[in-house]
Amino acid sequence: MTGLLVFAHGSSVESANEAVRAITAQLAALGGFSLIEAAFLEGGKPSLAGGVEGLMSRGATRIVVLPYFLTLGLHLQRDLPKLIDEAREAFPDLKEIHVTEPLDGHPALAQILLERAQSAC
Amino acid sequence: MTGLLVFAHGSSVESANEAVRAITAQLAALGGFSLIEAAFLEGGKPSLAGGVEGLMSRGATRIVVLPYFLTLGLHLQRDLPKLIDEAREAFPDLKEIHVTEPLDGHPALAQILLERAQSAC
Repeated sequence: MTGLLVFAHGSSVESANEAVRAITAQLAALGGFSLIEAAFLEGGKPSLAGGVEGLMSRGATRIVVLPYFLTLGLHLQRDLPKLIDEAREAFPDLKEIHVTEPLDGHPALAQILLERAQSAC
Repeated sequence: MTGLLVFAHGSSVESANEAVRAITAQLAALGGFSLIEAAFLEGGKPSLAGGVEGLMSRGATRIVVLPYFLTLGLHLQRDLPKLIDEAREAFPDLKEIHVTEPLDGHPALAQILLERAQSAC
């Protein structure tokens, strides 16, 4: 079974982490996913490893990580690959851990910005 | 005239900043906006103040800031209001500087995550 992790930066502002959990719940409803959790680089809980462990304890044998980041910066280029390597070592029973593209580059993003701009212009 | 600033976190990875400039160009094309620029909290250039100055030099008398952030964390709750106050003081000729909602909370975001998830499941 495949488990999904929505992986966000995380914030010391807990309401920001709650917003990530809320979009994770929306995604679960939209896609009919049951094995799904939010996980955070910093600030929020669980961590990526904690999220993987949680999903595995519920039966996941394969993990898909969805980076909830707009920018392909250092967190995705340096931090995330390191966390993925660590998870592979820490959870040898995991058959696969796969990282999808981030949000960046999706055409709907410009459309959202357009709506925001038009609401203010 | 209203100038638009797409305000992003910015990264030491310059290609990440280029991606923000690319979506700003997409937004300009979609909305037919000519007075539009990307600006960055850190890592990228120009800063918010630099972006405001650039748009004013091209005729903007009112600025709309579009926060290109997913998370309503400290950067938007603490850093951005401070930068806005500083811009108001630094540019007394500016008639208005307005900040829109961030991307967070828009229903299309869950839809993008769903596409990313389905491509990997």
